[in-house]
Amino acid sequence: MGDLLGVAVLGAGHMGADHVRRLDQVVSGARVAAVADPDVERAKEATAGLDGVTVHTEAVAALDAPGVAAVLIASPGPAHEEALLAAFDRGLPVLCEKPMVPHSTGALRVVEAEARLGRRLAQIGFMRRYDTEYRRLKALLDGGALGRPLMLHCTHRNVSSPADFTSAMLIDSSVSHEIDAARWLLGQELTAVTVLRPASSAGAPEGLIDPQFVLFETERGALVDVEVFVNCGFGYQVRCEAVCEAGSARIGDEHTMVVTSGGRATEDVAQDYLVRFADAYDREVQAWVDATRRGRVTGPGAWDGYAASVVAEAGVRALETGGRVAVELAPRPDLYAEVSR
Amino acid sequence: MGDLLGVAVLGAGHMGADHVRRLDQVVSGARVAAVADPDVERAKEATAGLDGVTVHTEAVAALDAPGVAAVLIASPGPAHEEALLAAFDRGLPVLCEKPMVPHSTGALRVVEAEARLGRRLAQIGFMRRYDTEYRRLKALLDGGALGRPLMLHCTHRNVSSPADFTSAMLIDSSVSHEIDAARWLLGQELTAVTVLRPASSAGAPEGLIDPQFVLFETERGALVDVEVFVNCGFGYQVRCEAVCEAGSARIGDEHTMVVTSGGRATEDVAQDYLVRFADAYDREVQAWVDATRRGRVTGPGAWDGYAASVVAEAGVRALETGGRVAVELAPRPDLYAEVSR
Amino acid sequence: MGDLLGVAVLGAGHMGADHVRRLDQVVSGARVAAVADPDVERAKEATAGLDGVTVHTEAVAALDAPGVAAVLIASPGPAHEEALLAAFDRGLPVLCEKPMVPHSTGALRVVEAEARLGRRLAQIGFMRRYDTEYRRLKALLDGGALGRPLMLHCTHRNVSSPADFTSAMLIDSSVSHEIDAARWLLGQELTAVTVLRPASSAGAPEGLIDPQFVLFETERGALVDVEVFVNCGFGYQVRCEAVCEAGSARIGDEHTMVVTSGGRATEDVAQDYLVRFADAYDREVQAWVDATRRGRVTGPGAWDGYAASVVAEAGVRALETGGRVAVELAPRPDLYAEVSR
Amino acid sequence: MGDLLGVAVLGAGHMGADHVRRLDQVVSGARVAAVADPDVERAKEATAGLDGVTVHTEAVAALDAPGVAAVLIASPGPAHEEALLAAFDRGLPVLCEKPMVPHSTGALRVVEAEARLGRRLAQIGFMRRYDTEYRRLKALLDGGALGRPLMLHCTHRNVSSPADFTSAMLIDSSVSHEIDAARWLLGQELTAVTVLRPASSAGAPEGLIDPQFVLFETERGALVDVEVFVNCGFGYQVRCEAVCEAGSARIGDEHTMVVTSGGRATEDVAQDYLVRFADAYDREVQAWVDATRRGRVTGPGAWDGYAASVVAEAGVRALETGGRVAVELAPRPDLYAEVSR
Repeated sequence: MGDLLGVAVLGAGHMGADHVRRLDQVVSGARVAAVADPDVERAKEATAGLDGVTVHTEAVAALDAPGVAAVLIASPGPAHEEALLAAFDRGLPVLCEKPMVPHSTGALRVVEAEARLGRRLAQIGFMRRYDTEYRRLKALLDGGALGRPLMLHCTHRNVSSPADFTSAMLIDSSVSHEIDAARWLLGQELTAVTVLRPASSAGAPEGLIDPQFVLFETERGALVDVEVFVNCGFGYQVRCEAVCEAGSARIGDEHTMVVTSGGRATEDVAQDYLVRFADAYDREVQAWVDATRRGRVTGPGAWDGYAASVVAEAGVRALETGGRVAVELAPRPDLYAEVSR
Repeated sequence: MGDLLGVAVLGAGHMGADHVRRLDQVVSGARVAAVADPDVERAKEATAGLDGVTVHTEAVAALDAPGVAAVLIASPGPAHEEALLAAFDRGLPVLCEKPMVPHSTGALRVVEAEARLGRRLAQIGFMRRYDTEYRRLKALLDGGALGRPLMLHCTHRNVSSPADFTSAMLIDSSVSHEIDAARWLLGQELTAVTVLRPASSAGAPEGLIDPQFVLFETERGALVDVEVFVNCGFGYQVRCEAVCEAGSARIGDEHTMVVTSGGRATEDVAQDYLVRFADAYDREVQAWVDATRRGRVTGPGAWDGYAASVVAEAGVRALETGGRVAVELAPRPDLYAEVSR
Repeated sequence: MGDLLGVAVLGAGHMGADHVRRLDQVVSGARVAAVADPDVERAKEATAGLDGVTVHTEAVAALDAPGVAAVLIASPGPAHEEALLAAFDRGLPVLCEKPMVPHSTGALRVVEAEARLGRRLAQIGFMRRYDTEYRRLKALLDGGALGRPLMLHCTHRNVSSPADFTSAMLIDSSVSHEIDAARWLLGQELTAVTVLRPASSAGAPEGLIDPQFVLFETERGALVDVEVFVNCGFGYQVRCEAVCEAGSARIGDEHTMVVTSGGRATEDVAQDYLVRFADAYDREVQAWVDATRRGRVTGPGAWDGYAASVVAEAGVRALETGGRVAVELAPRPDLYAEVSR
Repeated sequence: MGDLLGVAVLGAGHMGADHVRRLDQVVSGARVAAVADPDVERAKEATAGLDGVTVHTEAVAALDAPGVAAVLIASPGPAHEEALLAAFDRGLPVLCEKPMVPHSTGALRVVEAEARLGRRLAQIGFMRRYDTEYRRLKALLDGGALGRPLMLHCTHRNVSSPADFTSAMLIDSSVSHEIDAARWLLGQELTAVTVLRPASSAGAPEGLIDPQFVLFETERGALVDVEVFVNCGFGYQVRCEAVCEAGSARIGDEHTMVVTSGGRATEDVAQDYLVRFADAYDREVQAWVDATRRGRVTGPGAWDGYAASVVAEAGVRALETGGRVAVELAPRPDLYAEVSR
């Protein structure tokens, strides 16, 4: 397929450094051409041992560095909008980690900029679309053998949440994955959201509303419920059951090695998303590199990033008010004819 | 344990005839002494081949028949109140199929009558309490190893509903099992209910709201959600996952024989409750016979029957109004000091 | 079904006492009429609280006690032959615990005695034939959907063996269950046996050859392999996979409640056969009582007991010699036209 | 990590073409530098669209082509020995598909040549060592938590065998995977083999002995049994249960998406090894490229290839003779101090 795709990676934190490693050691057909981080030492550390990489403190400088033909945005969310617009100005394809833009007004500006450009350049990092189990479920639902989907029952559990995690972040950081997955699996926009508060766990930090139980309605009447429990203590569990008119399908029940010992049959449960979704990240970036080298965008795009922002904002309001909050999307530009592929 | 317990069975329909068979052929220590049904032919058919049984058209006559020391009520719901009160008058122990009394006002009269009597005589037919898997879950929750329960996720699916099934019956006939199971598993009363309506399945009869998604709140802040789907088409599935502060536990995923053939690994799914809960019915009646012969009542009682009625009525109102409906219970007589054992 | 079947129970040890309890409290249609045990105190203890039971030190006396219409033999194996022949003399139906008779020459005498009688009176206690999972597997194989069975892979594990357990007893006490199950599932006699000796476990008592790996051949060329491991330390596991021309079927993977906690998804494993096969014992005795009251024998019979003895003896020789040992059965009397039902 | 590793791929058949694709599109850090195949059209087809690749009819010419720094041998087995020796002459690292060399005498010559060289250059394509589930099992066994392994129960099933598949190939082509996996998992050489012949399936081609049941003994007394059934008709299934002194562990029971429909809960079974072991092939080649670029050999080596050949040959003799055949290995050169890592 010719020359390697030179990628500028913006952000050299945990996620950015992991993507540098992935582009260098895992993915075929790409190389890291530039890395930008305000903390230049961190950027140097992430690129130690790599040849032909320039290091920058300014994102824009990395975009203009020699050999850069595409951009991977892994900087903090507030820096995304500016980086996306700068990439659009230069006609550079982008893979942007979620959230695309933290607030929906900024997200809409990105959508409008890309719509003005008249062609898609941005892919958003909803990596569950690249998970083998989710893809099987999507294929099954699209195939139609089970008829119309009526409900999705989702579980999203983390061992524990970071120190600065807020009650709103259970919605706009954690459940945002289910928001995109539900839109993609069902091929429908979400139209309303309600958040219920069971008694909070003694295992959750003081003041954090955890777990929460989130209910979404869709444009064709499906119901999506999500248990989100970010201090469950025992593992990282992401499950989804689709209930359809002619059957149900369930993914996310781990099953690899069963060990029987001491009177029990036991399976280990993944402890974090890097274990559960390691392959999905690899496949996502490989697919993005492959499509980009062919001049295409095939993954979730700016509209998906925008819609996720609007739904998450409605969810946070629903959490705060205790009531049902309707989701109001701007008109969808023609560039984004489909909810998702 | 001495002589066989003579039982009067009221009602010789599907359920009554099954209980006659069970008392005669499965359960140890009991015998059928009398059967009553307005359709005397049906009563005779149910007792064909049995010795020492008298057949009656009036329930009260059966209670007074020779050798009757206990009563099993399997007549239609509207006949239950009168039969229960008649049994109380005679001091006869009773096993009464659910619903104890169709309306909560009548159910309260039964509670008050038994409270006046000052001793418990009635056990209500919530047979899930006798299912092996439910009992394991109850024991686990009571043992405390998983900490405080925060949520119960429940599934209740039937292949198809009877011709006369109404949208309200998804709540007061089907979900009534989950109402009792949740109260028993959690040891808490339910305090409010909300019913959501996903798009109805094309497989449901015209006009039936099916599936429904029911949310209960409890007095100590747990959340109980129930998917009830009575025309799912593919099987009878009853599942329950308890999510607690230190872990979760799930029952109801059938697993007996795995057949691998034609490119698939397959397990049969039970097609009706008589298969899934056959053992639970047997154990329920055996436990009732054993306790009765010892002069005790150990199962769910009149208060449980009353509480289930009140919650189910609130649920039906929640379905009709689309809103959240609070559950208002009368004061609990001292006779029923515990929610449930 | 008329009067209760009066049963004489021979032997009041662990198994006999359990059967007394079962006949009294679990099974419908029977009562304990007499109990015999050389240790009269043990017999009295087993019958404490029961009415109408006579206690004896001699088995024959119990058979002749008032009200006895059937016999359940749960005495030690060496006493079985005499008890069976005495029951045949009196025309009494018998349920005899396994082994029917410890040595095949004695077993053959029982077969010949029953054949001379010209009607079947004896059922042998191979209770796996009454286990729900085994019955499903049998029905599947008999139905023919998977084609001809080619192999059975069996596992038989115990937590630990009794103090006096010998290497030969892994075959003639433990594997004897698989011997009967294989004959019954396949509807074929076993024709040869080989026993392999993996390194013995450090968890096994000094000198005990444990585990063993036993290979049976059948008259129509199927292969049956059995891992028997009676000091595995972690649980009681009985599994069977039938591999057929058009698919395979597996039973015995327990699956009831999955508990997720502490980074693991866990299921308890049964610790002994009384847990794993509790229902099978109940069903076995109920089926025997029901059939006996109808004047029939429907379970495994004397021929099955004899064949199991011959195969087990060949297995013990195969263990001792390290080679393949052929199984030599006497001609089958017409009374036993089928290997098993 | 610097320049891409230029790889000469020998053989452009099914497997060779797949490796060309893998090196080009999946694996990071390598590029295809040369391809050799006697059928030059097939070689051109496999490299269509690739830049900088030379195409050859002679393997040796490909080794000497510009930019070649390593060799991947995917030609037919009889060509392997010459290619390996030519690579050794040139000091080129090699990944050689299994069988390393079809006959053990040739395999021993490869071992001796590498031993004379004094450093390891060859990795053999036993890709199961790179499968996630096998690696978990290996880590568990090495960790020692389950104590000493006593038995491995293995299943190896294919939907159907190629037209030219012989009874011996069930051993030396199919079971050769289990031979390597057992040596690697247990860290022991296999010392004897016996092959049993159940009745052959009607689904197997006329004359093919299928299934077979293969028993291996190891140097420290473990027993390995393998059901190999290459015309099972229903799927590709590779399972392994390790039974140890303190517990057992099982891998290979697929479990991804459970679909419940039409009265059944169903999971798809993989239909071929390219689905089941797709990730293992990718990881194997990536690991080889990574190690090679660091100047190391970390995978299974020439001794493993040789040992597998010797055991497979003993297995074929065991199949032919019906008896137990001892495995006779040449002395192990110091270069291969460990059975396997």
